[in-house]
Amino acid sequence: MTQEVQERQDSKPVYGSSGRKIIYDENGKPCRTCNTLLDFQMATHGTKVNIPTPKPSLAIPNDSPKEASKSADSPYPYQKEYPPDVTKLGNHSWTLLHTIAAAYPEKPSIEQQNEMKTFLNIFAKIYPCWYCGKDFQSFIKKNEPKVMTQDDFGKWLCNAHNSVNIKLGKPKFKCELWKKRWKDGWDE
Amino acid sequence: MTQEVQERQDSKPVYGSSGRKIIYDENGKPCRTCNTLLDFQMATHGTKVNIPTPKPSLAIPNDSPKEASKSADSPYPYQKEYPPDVTKLGNHSWTLLHTIAAAYPEKPSIEQQNEMKTFLNIFAKIYPCWYCGKDFQSFIKKNEPKVMTQDDFGKWLCNAHNSVNIKLGKPKFKCELWKKRWKDGWDE
Repeated sequence: MTQEVQERQDSKPVYGSSGRKIIYDENGKPCRTCNTLLDFQMATHGTKVNIPTPKPSLAIPNDSPKEASKSADSPYPYQKEYPPDVTKLGNHSWTLLHTIAAAYPEKPSIEQQNEMKTFLNIFAKIYPCWYCGKDFQSFIKKNEPKVMTQDDFGKWLCNAHNSVNIKLGKPKFKCELWKKRWKDGWDE
Repeated sequence: MTQEVQERQDSKPVYGSSGRKIIYDENGKPCRTCNTLLDFQMATHGTKVNIPTPKPSLAIPNDSPKEASKSADSPYPYQKEYPPDVTKLGNHSWTLLHTIAAAYPEKPSIEQQNEMKTFLNIFAKIYPCWYCGKDFQSFIKKNEPKVMTQDDFGKWLCNAHNSVNIKLGKPKFKCELWKKRWKDGWDE
């Protein structure tokens, strides 16, 4: 049975218009925080789109579906913004993590080191995109967090981020420059 | 001695162009993650700006300084993006926290409840904007995190966010709608 026939039978698309696999939750529903917004909408509303040939990498094309709407007669005093998709959630979460590293003490106490490890372990367990969280748990298991100094931690996080960049077909960041990107800026 | 004279003497401005107080680190340097980018640049580079009358609220005007640059002869294969300022850091962190609530179990185990409390306590301690973190610690002390159910936790976080919205002169979000904003979207 071809993939397309299979999809028509059970109405659960395997690939989204981004070329990425659609990720489902345990209950069989598309996972909002695991897919791009466009893929999530396609899988949820059953929008028929041309199924592209899956791309060799998981690179995300620049799809920009409507993310927020506001009408003049809205009963809400703010934009009706939508929950973040996998891309926005990832981007926003890396901002926080790298900036936490930038504020981490140069010479942390043992208690601070242990707290940071605890934080990372819980973070990986509760991260809203479940398969991303499992990936992070797996990375932590293979690469114990280095939290002895600020620079150790910043570079460890940079390597963790690069392991995701590779999966997404994105360029790797040069980790020796992490402080310029996340702490000091690029001005000499 | 007037404020302006004082500032000329020690070159440490008290107010930024946004009307917000400039926040300094323990070492006396302007805190990058505690100020808006424009205020930080002003305090760091000593740019003389017209000191505005401090506003009654802490509302942030729509100042949009350059955040990233990329030149054709850059040795880096990516945009030279700058560390986040207080606004971007806050925005990105709330995205993560609210989405964590949206993925939190409807009926969490005691272990999951304790982990979430631990996560929040460490988060407040390591948050890169130190005075924001202290505010969050203070909120947690006065309002013990409600993590018995997903809905309890989502509403507790919404109230925490509103306590910051009030300080910033922003409209409060209606917490009974938190699931539409952060979990299910606005479509019926």
